[in-house]
Amino acid sequence: MQILSCLEIKKELSLLINWELKESNLYRKVCFDNYLQAIDFVNKVAQLAEEQNHHPLLLIDYTTVKIKLSTHDAGGITTKDFQLALTINKIKL
Amino acid sequence: MQILSCLEIKKELSLLINWELKESNLYRKVCFDNYLQAIDFVNKVAQLAEEQNHHPLLLIDYTTVKIKLSTHDAGGITTKDFQLALTINKIKL
Repeated sequence: MQILSCLEIKKELSLLINWELKESNLYRKVCFDNYLQAIDFVNKVAQLAEEQNHHPLLLIDYTTVKIKLSTHDAGGITTKDFQLALTINKIKL
Repeated sequence: MQILSCLEIKKELSLLINWELKESNLYRKVCFDNYLQAIDFVNKVAQLAEEQNHHPLLLIDYTTVKIKLSTHDAGGITTKDFQLALTINKIKL
């Protein structure tokens, strides 16, 4: 899978709510009212990750979940990252 | 809750398998055979965290889970951190 160019990433990001480019990853920070809601979200993201065979970096800091997405095999951001980001947005905007 | 001194931390750590001191946190890295095992472990740790009302930083990087423990309110490492580390060891050594 080919990595996207800077221009392509910019274009795709303009269509994707809640995500930004951070340290060469697609990045999203999601806040919840309580810890169990955060863990529930992580489980839903994990299920998507398994389905798409594409596993994001997930950081759970109490009620905040941070997600980092890139395609290690390709060495950058690919359409797989945007695909996963989009489906994560479907479970929580 | 009072933070532990450097000497107290060293003594407690000598009795605790798999954990080390890293950037002023108790730190453990746990590796699994597959992603779902890693997620299952995170859920078990989250349950302990809720029970003890003490929530570690959890980083899920595919089949690796990294755990960081400190007591924010106290500004350092306390017996609460060692207590949680010990119970995490009971679910996976």
